[in-house]
Amino acid sequence: MRATPIFAAIEAGGTKWRIAVGTSVKQSSCIEIRTREPDETLDEVLAFIEREVELQGSLAGLGIGSFGPLGIDPSMPDYGVIGRTPKLNWKDVDLKAIARRLDVPYQIDTDVNAAALGELDARAPLQGKLIYVTVGTGIGGGVAERGIISSGIDHPEMGHVPVRRVAGDDYPGCCPFHRDCLEGLASGPAIEARWGADLSALGSDHEGLPLIAHYLGQLVVSLTLVMAPMKIIIGGGVSQAPGLLDQIQQEAHRQLGGYLSRYDELDSLVSLVQGPMLGSNSGLHGAFLLAHQAAQAET
Amino acid sequence: MRATPIFAAIEAGGTKWRIAVGTSVKQSSCIEIRTREPDETLDEVLAFIEREVELQGSLAGLGIGSFGPLGIDPSMPDYGVIGRTPKLNWKDVDLKAIARRLDVPYQIDTDVNAAALGELDARAPLQGKLIYVTVGTGIGGGVAERGIISSGIDHPEMGHVPVRRVAGDDYPGCCPFHRDCLEGLASGPAIEARWGADLSALGSDHEGLPLIAHYLGQLVVSLTLVMAPMKIIIGGGVSQAPGLLDQIQQEAHRQLGGYLSRYDELDSLVSLVQGPMLGSNSGLHGAFLLAHQAAQAET
Repeated sequence: MRATPIFAAIEAGGTKWRIAVGTSVKQSSCIEIRTREPDETLDEVLAFIEREVELQGSLAGLGIGSFGPLGIDPSMPDYGVIGRTPKLNWKDVDLKAIARRLDVPYQIDTDVNAAALGELDARAPLQGKLIYVTVGTGIGGGVAERGIISSGIDHPEMGHVPVRRVAGDDYPGCCPFHRDCLEGLASGPAIEARWGADLSALGSDHEGLPLIAHYLGQLVVSLTLVMAPMKIIIGGGVSQAPGLLDQIQQEAHRQLGGYLSRYDELDSLVSLVQGPMLGSNSGLHGAFLLAHQAAQAET
Repeated sequence: MRATPIFAAIEAGGTKWRIAVGTSVKQSSCIEIRTREPDETLDEVLAFIEREVELQGSLAGLGIGSFGPLGIDPSMPDYGVIGRTPKLNWKDVDLKAIARRLDVPYQIDTDVNAAALGELDARAPLQGKLIYVTVGTGIGGGVAERGIISSGIDHPEMGHVPVRRVAGDDYPGCCPFHRDCLEGLASGPAIEARWGADLSALGSDHEGLPLIAHYLGQLVVSLTLVMAPMKIIIGGGVSQAPGLLDQIQQEAHRQLGGYLSRYDELDSLVSLVQGPMLGSNSGLHGAFLLAHQAAQAET
């Protein structure tokens, strides 16, 4: 009798990793570990997966959604290798090492691309592009379409787009590369530096909410004008501030200025810009889908 | 003996139309007519195509690249129908009427999407997304990838993205919807309103050149961060100002701020951002490719 085929899914973050082994997020054993030094972290990940595989069955595929920058082109030597990250010891770490040790088919992409894939699947059958934007320690985005991740010659870095400053906002911005790009003005660290607390703690009457909504609304407008997506999902820690999503929808509607007839009504923005259907599991679900795709590509 | 299969390609612009009948732009009879009232214009287009078909052979396909906004989804009733345009009499004009009268397979898309397709083909085999940006009376963009046009639920409208103002630039902008979006600040009419002449006439020492390059550089940066294209082609009348392309490449390099390692060197921006290889024929060549694709889809 052949063992049940199971899959391993990894969401690799800058502060924590989540690892699930089973057939789906719901049907899996899952742990969450703190991100430490690379060797230590990878050893713990591998130990968990190997133990679970022994308990559950035969590992058919591995999917990893990781923080970046990250090589995502399977034909390139830097596939699965972490690039210039502020987490210095993680630069040049090759996540392919996990798959090689497990000797299993794998796919590796960014955490937000995996989350886009997960949310697209949760909304099947959705036609058109789905963009997943995370707003947390950083701001990043991923794109999925027709059941697969859709990138260019590299993964998107949409958190760093230039934005137009709101009049009177004199916070200089905290991006080490661009100072006041979107991430520099509206990420979690920018919010903390501006007001000494996170957006949820500030409350729904605080001036911070409309300001951050204005900047994230600009991203929604730019993405809509450039890519015409079917859905833009706003996830990540900052996005959970009560009332923020409503204000982003309103801001995007206002900033579009009646230009695109399909967004004449505010309701159409409410349909375009949504929170994640899978809560905090979008990325891990996407990593399972990557594991499935890896297994299918092998057969 | 069967007549030689020939194709009709139309580039429909707000001020002029170009129509070519033959097997390619080089092997075709081509006319250029001024855009007048819809009925009059379409009659002249049809008369030319019908005459040429009689002379040359049997019409196998029609491709149209048109000004927009335009319905581009073949499954929708507004496919090939011109939307809210300032050219009032052209609103709701159905370009499918041309194909119906000719009784021929057809594909219709925007002028800039067709131009993107044409430039992609001219650079074959190019991997990755190619974005074609036109800077003229308006600013618009199209995307092609893997031999086909790549749109979302609608064609891009990237000319209207919000941009960050250059310090000291107090021109209010001329976009009737957004005032100082990219098109409002950097299109031909904005340049004319700012300095009373077109950018080429102002000369390469005029302050206008770096200012317009700054705004177009912002678009290049945003597109690169959001879509990671392989090429961004800058076409259209304004783009021909001597020295502009160089300054856009330099601005984009500066504004990226060393964030993306693949663009560390200025040369990499020179490779990313280029003028059209086909000169003013990108769109018409793309329309021929659409005609070929229509004929292939039929068989």
